[in-house]
Amino acid sequence: MTISDEAKPSEASEINGAESLVRTLVTGGVEVCFANPGTSEMHFVAALDQVEGIRSILCLFEGVATGAADGYARMAGKPAATLLHLGPGLANGLANLHNAKRARSSVINIVGEHATFHRRFDAPLTSDIEALAQQYSGWLRTSENSRMVAADGAEAIAAALTPPGHIATLVLPADTAWGAGGPVATVSPVPSRATADQSQIAEAVEALRQGSRTLLLLGDRSLRADGLALVARIAQKTGARYLAQTSNARMERGAGRLPIERVPYPVDAAVQALADFDAIILVGATPPVAFFGYPGKPSELAPAQCRFVSLAEPHEDQIEALSRLAEAVAAPSQVQLPAALRPELPPDGPLNPASIAAVLGALIPEQAIVCDESVTTGRLFFGQTHGARPHDWLQLTGGSIGLGIPLATGAAVACPDRKVIALQADGSGLYTVQGLWTQAREKLSILTCIWSNRSYAILRGELAAVGARNPGPRALDMLSLDNPSVDWVSLAHGFGMEARRVSTVREFAEAFREGLKPGPYLIEVLLDG
Amino acid sequence: MTISDEAKPSEASEINGAESLVRTLVTGGVEVCFANPGTSEMHFVAALDQVEGIRSILCLFEGVATGAADGYARMAGKPAATLLHLGPGLANGLANLHNAKRARSSVINIVGEHATFHRRFDAPLTSDIEALAQQYSGWLRTSENSRMVAADGAEAIAAALTPPGHIATLVLPADTAWGAGGPVATVSPVPSRATADQSQIAEAVEALRQGSRTLLLLGDRSLRADGLALVARIAQKTGARYLAQTSNARMERGAGRLPIERVPYPVDAAVQALADFDAIILVGATPPVAFFGYPGKPSELAPAQCRFVSLAEPHEDQIEALSRLAEAVAAPSQVQLPAALRPELPPDGPLNPASIAAVLGALIPEQAIVCDESVTTGRLFFGQTHGARPHDWLQLTGGSIGLGIPLATGAAVACPDRKVIALQADGSGLYTVQGLWTQAREKLSILTCIWSNRSYAILRGELAAVGARNPGPRALDMLSLDNPSVDWVSLAHGFGMEARRVSTVREFAEAFREGLKPGPYLIEVLLDG
Repeated sequence: MTISDEAKPSEASEINGAESLVRTLVTGGVEVCFANPGTSEMHFVAALDQVEGIRSILCLFEGVATGAADGYARMAGKPAATLLHLGPGLANGLANLHNAKRARSSVINIVGEHATFHRRFDAPLTSDIEALAQQYSGWLRTSENSRMVAADGAEAIAAALTPPGHIATLVLPADTAWGAGGPVATVSPVPSRATADQSQIAEAVEALRQGSRTLLLLGDRSLRADGLALVARIAQKTGARYLAQTSNARMERGAGRLPIERVPYPVDAAVQALADFDAIILVGATPPVAFFGYPGKPSELAPAQCRFVSLAEPHEDQIEALSRLAEAVAAPSQVQLPAALRPELPPDGPLNPASIAAVLGALIPEQAIVCDESVTTGRLFFGQTHGARPHDWLQLTGGSIGLGIPLATGAAVACPDRKVIALQADGSGLYTVQGLWTQAREKLSILTCIWSNRSYAILRGELAAVGARNPGPRALDMLSLDNPSVDWVSLAHGFGMEARRVSTVREFAEAFREGLKPGPYLIEVLLDG
Repeated sequence: MTISDEAKPSEASEINGAESLVRTLVTGGVEVCFANPGTSEMHFVAALDQVEGIRSILCLFEGVATGAADGYARMAGKPAATLLHLGPGLANGLANLHNAKRARSSVINIVGEHATFHRRFDAPLTSDIEALAQQYSGWLRTSENSRMVAADGAEAIAAALTPPGHIATLVLPADTAWGAGGPVATVSPVPSRATADQSQIAEAVEALRQGSRTLLLLGDRSLRADGLALVARIAQKTGARYLAQTSNARMERGAGRLPIERVPYPVDAAVQALADFDAIILVGATPPVAFFGYPGKPSELAPAQCRFVSLAEPHEDQIEALSRLAEAVAAPSQVQLPAALRPELPPDGPLNPASIAAVLGALIPEQAIVCDESVTTGRLFFGQTHGARPHDWLQLTGGSIGLGIPLATGAAVACPDRKVIALQADGSGLYTVQGLWTQAREKLSILTCIWSNRSYAILRGELAAVGARNPGPRALDMLSLDNPSVDWVSLAHGFGMEARRVSTVREFAEAFREGLKPGPYLIEVLLDG
């Protein structure tokens, strides 16, 4: 067969497409690449040696790479790249891209593809990559020319950074990586967050006249310290109530910050929490809906007569809008925050969600980054950590389990001077357990606490909630992980990580303190299923 | 909000949609469900208790479920069901569905979805499931009505069984599972494999007049014992040569069967292997193409002047076509097969691909099912096992790594009386390592050999093959898994499985024999990277 022009490798005197892309990424401020490379990405891998300024971090599964990119973006406020191997590699990363999209994280996926001349032959790894990427990507392009790869990369960076944050996916056929590259491209200026209209402020002022029958529902950027300080002032003046969304990409919380509860996960509790409001002011949030539909239960959680006022949408500048709102209602410049004391460390006793919550409240260190995929075990944690030392709290935003270990990995890469505390349900953790190896390899400062209840505990409740009749032993067996029990200490050792198993409060507190030293550490916390 | 009719749970006196589906599956011959359930699948899980005749097997990750369904189908010749949780659950299973599609395996995916009335609210787990499933599914439908679920299920079974085998995906909104079910449906008769036209036979006869300049290229069903026996007779009479495709779903081989080589994986070797042929007769095979495109190398592996004759396509009856071809060329009824002796067990020595191959050739037990995801380590295995005791050999068909452990799991479920030998590269095995837990839980008779070279060894060759210039330490670091080394014995123990590490031929042979006892066992075979 004839070989197309595009298939010719670049000359020694010029850079190839892959190197033009890597240099463009570095120029555009991308410092990290979470990588699962294969054959079609070998030129990109080789280019990493030619270019200073980008750290490539190897993952053992693509879901680790994409989840780590999410955690990195949440803490660094800018995108990392992922390097994925054709359609199946992207497919393995989709579940955590689903979460990243829901977190509005900036992510740049580089997906290797067959050389352009090779695609039509339906070789074994051929698939429709764009069809897989479409619904998760705010920006999506297949480079068709090695000289355009750098410009495509610059566009991908700009798209990822455009508020409120997007996933940009660049499909890179192998010959556009090995062919002659174009000039290194610079990233076009990204628009800043839009400012709320004056009418939005005025509507919110009007709604706030209802006092405690109005709710400020917070999401996105409004849950950082500056947003919460403004909410505290507005609430003090108007009597309005405030809640965070059920799942949030990042909250700044702990001592000195406004303690804020979330809309509860169970439908009945959520309906009750919202029952008394006539108006809900949305600040980086969307109208609250049930996580799942249930027989005879509503999907929309607010009362039917409740009206919604959008102060600032997720892509808008929520801090600026809150600031104008505070001014418009003549909020006081200083307020006394509601009391939230740091819990005492319990001396000893059995481990259960309440005692674990107290240990966490007492021991979370200053400026910790808490990555929470606790699922059922964690429902009491929030209340007991309002008064903990100041920290960030990152949640599972898209409901796709298996984010926790990768998320912690990425957060630790973004913030090497802060301790990451990963609160991890066992069933979810097993989805992406390979991420522990990357934590060990990179010596990341992550303390992982596994809530070992040896079950998909959440599903026991859900089985009843959906009205399933008389579940018998075969159904219950599908929710149980105890036959055999997973030994998390062995798994951690297998991936090169120090680990310890605990079964009392005293042991947990001791291990937790031990795990606060630099580097990775895992505690298996034995609970009754 | 108002609740639609569909949302009402079924009355106690009637079966619900989920139970109508499970009963339909059982009636249609589906005996196994590899399950990763979530909230939206709870009625399906509950229905498993109401219905006898289906075995539900819990997996800790959806890629294990789909890969196991592939392995089951290859050995059982009929589909298992998978139970997956919404779009992200399906996404996690796609990479192994990619392999299953390339193996032409029959698989029935049941993908839980939000209740129909809940979909429009864009709850966190909402995604476009059909967009994800489309390219992997020969049949795809979302049930919109609980009374139609059983009929949809019967159609899915028929579609999965239609030759040459397909993936059927049924998306099951939660309210179609909990609403009133329709009557249990029976599966329509499935067309049998089409018969080759007489013109195809005649063209093949014509091509075979070239003798040794004609190749019989075998894939799909022609690689079973009956097909190989016919090929041996045809070759004996005509002097034609024969090769198997590079990757095959299932080959029946070993003592007493025609020893057959495969088209080599490396492009140059493949081109050389095919260089002398004027005609290639395709029997359940497609024209050979390179796995990847490389600079200056062809995508099509056969010589430009070579013509292709299709004796029987994958969906056609290859055995019947070979039988008619044997008759048309007046092939002898009995032939002397080329000699292929079982290797002697080497007494001792260092472990390397050659010595491992000899141990395998000597010790593979009668009627073993070999699941091969050895990648680089395994390139010598085939030649040393032609004369092993009769066995089946299952390969990675779609190139998406992480199939091996799940494939072995499914094969062992399909054939509880046979020993499964999983030959597993370490880097690939880590993709779906959670599958070891399901093997332990179900006490499956699987001996897993991990080729622990602590690297993505294949990529070292590929880095050179694509012409990447001067890879430096950062590039090579991306191909290395040795910092830290993964301890497979610890991982196996963590998942509840017996395991042992070996570093000499004597130790390997001893552990291999030990691992042939019933139940799961893992050997970490230490190799130089």
